[in-house]
Amino acid sequence: MDSLLPSNLYELSREEKNHLLQKLETQYKSIQEEKLHLDITRGKPSPEQLDLSLPMLSILDEKHYQSENHTDCRNYGVLDGLPEMKKLFGEILDIPHENIFVGGNSSLNLMYDVLVQAMLYGLPGGTKPWKDEKISFLCPVPGYDRHFAILEHLGIEMIPIRLNEDGPNMESVLSLVERNPSIKGIFCVPKYSNPTGITYSDEVVKAFCTMKPAAPDFRVFWDNAYAIHDIESPGERLLNVFAEAQQHHCTDRFYIFTSTSKISFAGGGVACIATGEKNLKALKKHYSIQTIGYDKLNQLRHVLFFKDRKTIENHMKKHAEILKPKKDIVVNTLQKYFSNLGVVQWTNPRGGYFVCLETLPGCASKVVTLAHEAGVKLTPAGSTHPYNKDPKDTTIRIAFSYPSTKDIQKAMEVVSLCIALASLQTMLGQK
Amino acid sequence: MDSLLPSNLYELSREEKNHLLQKLETQYKSIQEEKLHLDITRGKPSPEQLDLSLPMLSILDEKHYQSENHTDCRNYGVLDGLPEMKKLFGEILDIPHENIFVGGNSSLNLMYDVLVQAMLYGLPGGTKPWKDEKISFLCPVPGYDRHFAILEHLGIEMIPIRLNEDGPNMESVLSLVERNPSIKGIFCVPKYSNPTGITYSDEVVKAFCTMKPAAPDFRVFWDNAYAIHDIESPGERLLNVFAEAQQHHCTDRFYIFTSTSKISFAGGGVACIATGEKNLKALKKHYSIQTIGYDKLNQLRHVLFFKDRKTIENHMKKHAEILKPKKDIVVNTLQKYFSNLGVVQWTNPRGGYFVCLETLPGCASKVVTLAHEAGVKLTPAGSTHPYNKDPKDTTIRIAFSYPSTKDIQKAMEVVSLCIALASLQTMLGQK
Repeated sequence: MDSLLPSNLYELSREEKNHLLQKLETQYKSIQEEKLHLDITRGKPSPEQLDLSLPMLSILDEKHYQSENHTDCRNYGVLDGLPEMKKLFGEILDIPHENIFVGGNSSLNLMYDVLVQAMLYGLPGGTKPWKDEKISFLCPVPGYDRHFAILEHLGIEMIPIRLNEDGPNMESVLSLVERNPSIKGIFCVPKYSNPTGITYSDEVVKAFCTMKPAAPDFRVFWDNAYAIHDIESPGERLLNVFAEAQQHHCTDRFYIFTSTSKISFAGGGVACIATGEKNLKALKKHYSIQTIGYDKLNQLRHVLFFKDRKTIENHMKKHAEILKPKKDIVVNTLQKYFSNLGVVQWTNPRGGYFVCLETLPGCASKVVTLAHEAGVKLTPAGSTHPYNKDPKDTTIRIAFSYPSTKDIQKAMEVVSLCIALASLQTMLGQK
Repeated sequence: MDSLLPSNLYELSREEKNHLLQKLETQYKSIQEEKLHLDITRGKPSPEQLDLSLPMLSILDEKHYQSENHTDCRNYGVLDGLPEMKKLFGEILDIPHENIFVGGNSSLNLMYDVLVQAMLYGLPGGTKPWKDEKISFLCPVPGYDRHFAILEHLGIEMIPIRLNEDGPNMESVLSLVERNPSIKGIFCVPKYSNPTGITYSDEVVKAFCTMKPAAPDFRVFWDNAYAIHDIESPGERLLNVFAEAQQHHCTDRFYIFTSTSKISFAGGGVACIATGEKNLKALKKHYSIQTIGYDKLNQLRHVLFFKDRKTIENHMKKHAEILKPKKDIVVNTLQKYFSNLGVVQWTNPRGGYFVCLETLPGCASKVVTLAHEAGVKLTPAGSTHPYNKDPKDTTIRIAFSYPSTKDIQKAMEVVSLCIALASLQTMLGQK
């Protein structure tokens, strides 16, 4: 396809638009006949990316199973992580290793654990368990569906907050957090935000450290999932929220999460929490009841393979080399078909795993359905918003990492056609 | 030392006892001067046992990271475990693989998760979350301290039930469970029980399947941690509670837990839950919110290394060869010093990780303190009972697996001396 919609789209007569619609529908039907099976729903690394860490699989052997301080990593013990794994996460996040708790393979599970601890026992600074109060969380939107799913599951009310180019609308955040003690937290993906790809500005990061929350146990869930996940060079720089919080004596306001899921293996990585001393003490108390300890062998694999920040940065450059052509296909295809047309806007992030589309109001779910019926799976419309409710029905998340460049190209051709179709239908007042 | 207490102990005059006490105290002091550092507190595998699974560490490599059905185990996906890992656990437990949920490295964490799910959401069959009721659990004693710790942490009241040679006193269990709807569960270690080493009789297992609990959401937490952990040959046989429950249509009454922690690596194993369909469905719903999935690479390591029940059984024989001499030292030393004296009784289990001592009333904590002050760490007295309260202060758990045979021998000499001393002190009315 060379073009889908003409540059004088808005000047076309109703008849001309109908004619164009018929033409696009014919194209759509012929694509349906190709019986495609393409999937751009989830931010999964591709096999080529996973291959980058293959040597890690056999890095342990009959001689290598002890940590630096001679802990036998095969046995029980060491609840909060190997010292060298803490150090490695400390280097990734630029946070003192003393403030790090190393967990299992899933940072999402750590977030869930902390929220469960808050529900059942309360958090340091609070007066009672969250289960005994009616509480709510702020949710910058568009945001990450799995954060919303946890909050919804726990019965925590979600209040959407507009996510701008530089982070959440802090005017709204501050006016709510500083006045309403029932607001107990906010979920943030501060770098290469899922799905819009933006990075919080220094001002926004600082505002989180200087705010005066009405709730004494207010917490920021700082999901730094893409801390070192640049695609373009140079990547974006996120102000170090922990260092900033230290200056304002509020490190316990933050739970900072990250993992190696998109550095090493998505199912077999290591995750951590960085936080202040009071939180850490409470975390360790709860975790000492919940488990005997996490898999230290996998921690050892990671430290032996990744060694230090420099080695990881070089490793991440190889990820970027694989990801950049895919992201470029997404952006260039949209550019080719929709430049200056105004029917869709898209992001061009410098890192992370997603391109985010903004369609005409009421169009996003149409596009997703059309694409689905043409064999291209997209993340369900609405999933970027709490309770799956995108009020204007405009947001679509494109996950470009997993498919091959060829499949991404094909998928984007289909998605573009679907956008053109849905936009035209909407302009013609069709449901 | 050849002997500690004479066979005519009970016929000695007070003066003779005092004289003997002085002699033992002199021996004790000379042991204190040795400044020992021995530890028989925890049921940890020894390095030699962990060595048995060393080849597993390098069993995955650049060519081996896919499951049988070509799932890339390095990536996200497959919440409830690889099919072949379910099959392997199915063979270990003799339970259909369809009824198995595979988790992370810790079965304790799975028990905690299920209890948290019960607290926050309730369980299938129940009418409300457990957090909204005043509830209690039955705890066979002596039992496992970490079970008690979870219940205490969650604020679930613990009711001790006498653990007999053939399992919990079922008369008490039935009369409580069938009459009192606030009793929501019971924790069992049905084979080679921690710490007494007993295995539940067929009658006891059957009684759990035929009981009519007053609470519709009553659950049995069946911690089958030592399912295939024989030391003596033949080992003991535990009736298959799942098969029995199938006959009585009550598989959802049971959460059956096991793990490879004491088969492969104590910190780096794989754990699972086996249960009925309704529970499984609820489990998967909750876990799908809590995590994206567990470490499938480690599951793959286990299935490639252990293959099937037969291979695991042979592997467990090698564990037994390492464990038996250690258990024999514990039992033989006690036999040598205390046979027919009546001041202490001990178990001689055919499997598992513990020997359990029963001292004179009021003596257990004395023995632990004396041993500690002579450089031998024992599990704290009372930890085998809910709230750390052993009402008669008689139970001591000996964990023989970790130290070398030489260290076990030395530790048991010290412990024996401490038993003799404490018994004599008690007989003389000393605190």
